[in-house]
Amino acid sequence: MFEAEIDAGVLKECIEAIIAVVDEGKLRISAEGLNLRAVDPSNVAMVTFQLQNDAFDDYRFSNGAHDEGLEIGMDFQKLLSILGIGGREQVRLSVDEQAQKLYMRMGSLAYTVNLLEPSSLRKEPKVPELEFPVQVVMDIEDFRRTIRAAEKVGEYILLGVDGDEFYMEVEGEMDKLRLGLRKEQLIHLTPGTLHSLFTLDYIAAMSKGMSHAENVTLNLGKDYPLQIEFEVAEGKGKVSYLLAPRVE
Amino acid sequence: MFEAEIDAGVLKECIEAIIAVVDEGKLRISAEGLNLRAVDPSNVAMVTFQLQNDAFDDYRFSNGAHDEGLEIGMDFQKLLSILGIGGREQVRLSVDEQAQKLYMRMGSLAYTVNLLEPSSLRKEPKVPELEFPVQVVMDIEDFRRTIRAAEKVGEYILLGVDGDEFYMEVEGEMDKLRLGLRKEQLIHLTPGTLHSLFTLDYIAAMSKGMSHAENVTLNLGKDYPLQIEFEVAEGKGKVSYLLAPRVE
Amino acid sequence: MFEAEIDAGVLKECIEAIIAVVDEGKLRISAEGLNLRAVDPSNVAMVTFQLQNDAFDDYRFSNGAHDEGLEIGMDFQKLLSILGIGGREQVRLSVDEQAQKLYMRMGSLAYTVNLLEPSSLRKEPKVPELEFPVQVVMDIEDFRRTIRAAEKVGEYILLGVDGDEFYMEVEGEMDKLRLGLRKEQLIHLTPGTLHSLFTLDYIAAMSKGMSHAENVTLNLGKDYPLQIEFEVAEGKGKVSYLLAPRVE
Repeated sequence: MFEAEIDAGVLKECIEAIIAVVDEGKLRISAEGLNLRAVDPSNVAMVTFQLQNDAFDDYRFSNGAHDEGLEIGMDFQKLLSILGIGGREQVRLSVDEQAQKLYMRMGSLAYTVNLLEPSSLRKEPKVPELEFPVQVVMDIEDFRRTIRAAEKVGEYILLGVDGDEFYMEVEGEMDKLRLGLRKEQLIHLTPGTLHSLFTLDYIAAMSKGMSHAENVTLNLGKDYPLQIEFEVAEGKGKVSYLLAPRVE
Repeated sequence: MFEAEIDAGVLKECIEAIIAVVDEGKLRISAEGLNLRAVDPSNVAMVTFQLQNDAFDDYRFSNGAHDEGLEIGMDFQKLLSILGIGGREQVRLSVDEQAQKLYMRMGSLAYTVNLLEPSSLRKEPKVPELEFPVQVVMDIEDFRRTIRAAEKVGEYILLGVDGDEFYMEVEGEMDKLRLGLRKEQLIHLTPGTLHSLFTLDYIAAMSKGMSHAENVTLNLGKDYPLQIEFEVAEGKGKVSYLLAPRVE
Repeated sequence: MFEAEIDAGVLKECIEAIIAVVDEGKLRISAEGLNLRAVDPSNVAMVTFQLQNDAFDDYRFSNGAHDEGLEIGMDFQKLLSILGIGGREQVRLSVDEQAQKLYMRMGSLAYTVNLLEPSSLRKEPKVPELEFPVQVVMDIEDFRRTIRAAEKVGEYILLGVDGDEFYMEVEGEMDKLRLGLRKEQLIHLTPGTLHSLFTLDYIAAMSKGMSHAENVTLNLGKDYPLQIEFEVAEGKGKVSYLLAPRVE
């Protein structure tokens, strides 16, 4: 049995973070809160999402036979399109396992959607064991603005550190854009000398998914995956993206 | 002879209400005001429009030989596109019957448009004699918001009453949306048990046509047409839409 | 050597004025400021642009061997798309003649673009010697609003004076729009009786290029080119468009 109530804006923020990588996925519901781990169709990007039960105004879960919690298959795009209509109001969620349905109630509006058959969804990925030599924490607006500008210039983006500077760099046929931030312009920087190249499209989608956060943490290596971490639901939820590097 | 002056915003509101159903039609001008009755090309929806002469800041009409008033064929889409440019200012209208032209003056801008030949337009429909067992009066925003959400879900919408509740319901392949409002959440409700099904596209267009009203009245029957009524021009005008039901 | 600093909003305003006619062109840099003269690909419209050095917050130029200043080939659309990302902040510009590159720095963001090979660009046009019997100075909003409305009606626009009135007139198949402004509604008018016809598309593009100006000066003749003049950068820059008439 799952039944919960949450601010519509907070739920929207969470779903936006997830659909930056996947349109649908398996959401795991437990007494502690919600969890999701999914890879995008091209197997290049992964999202890990956690939302604590205290992000909800009301949260009830009894798992009966499910030791590991309840797993439901969700079409996140559908949910978002319905949430987009309402204002910032309360949403009441409940799951009917027997009928395989999610119920969502906003004021006098009741929305019912069939759950997706979990076996029809891509398998939950294993999180690879990774160690990142460099961590950068920066203001989210610096990050998002640079990504928006970068999209005008090229297709791939280089993220790196050079001593005490973090940089993002994109090259077009005729032009080049570079953001360079020194340690004192960042919230945190591990100094070093390394960089990795990424496909801009993925990072651009991710940067849309983090529009409500304040800071973003980038974990980097040399020709290594990029991990992007940020908070949702005023710190009561966490999102982590993992993106494979391009070989230069 | 017809010459009149009206607030551009009020005229825009009226034309928007009309083009929810028809792009062009016969407008009847009399000493009392303006009238229009027209059906949409597919013969599924009808609009009846009335605007009293006191909605105008100046209104002059002398019908000469026309006992029933003057009938002019109008391209409402054209008028709206020109009105859309101006701000909220005064519009001076006049009709030259001989030349078959409408003159519209907004400040220093003069717009002249040929009237449409009335015989080229669909015949004015007869208003069928209908009796509606149920009447619902509701806040327009509840109505419009539900219609916007419904468009994300399906193609047909069920409108009905069930005892003391009015509901709107739409089903998609995977999901279902339902607005249920109890008597105390409505301005008026005739209790009953009945419903009818309608094509959502028509109601969605109508809901755009009523964006300036405060309340909307829905007259309903069992597998019966829907009549939607609302006011324009701060109560000095009335619009009524009639929509044929779909057979389930 | 050229290095300068300017408000991003002012630079944007200048580039928008230029791209109303050309996407790329030769910009001439001298100790006095910037200059450009270019014709559009169809040879129907010309833009002349001047920006004084005091429109900049910092301006350094030493021309070495270039007596006539430095000439650089610029892709203005590219510049505008990057400027569009930033807010209203300072932009630092510099040119590396050897490397044939323009550097643009906004805060921590550095943008480098290859200069276009001047020989690959259309030759700078000669400004024809023209004498305009009539001059009209008007509020820019009256002008821009009429052009927007005119686009809904037809393809060509007549600009003329008739005694003490200036008028703009456009005819569609079914309708006609006319703005008539008497001398007292204008800032300046040379009375007369003449008009010329122009392709609306060009004037519509130009009217977008002047969105930050307050007044616009129109110089007119009988079946003669139209010259449109306005200021940019709070009077520290001047733009002049020249448009060939259509033969009626």
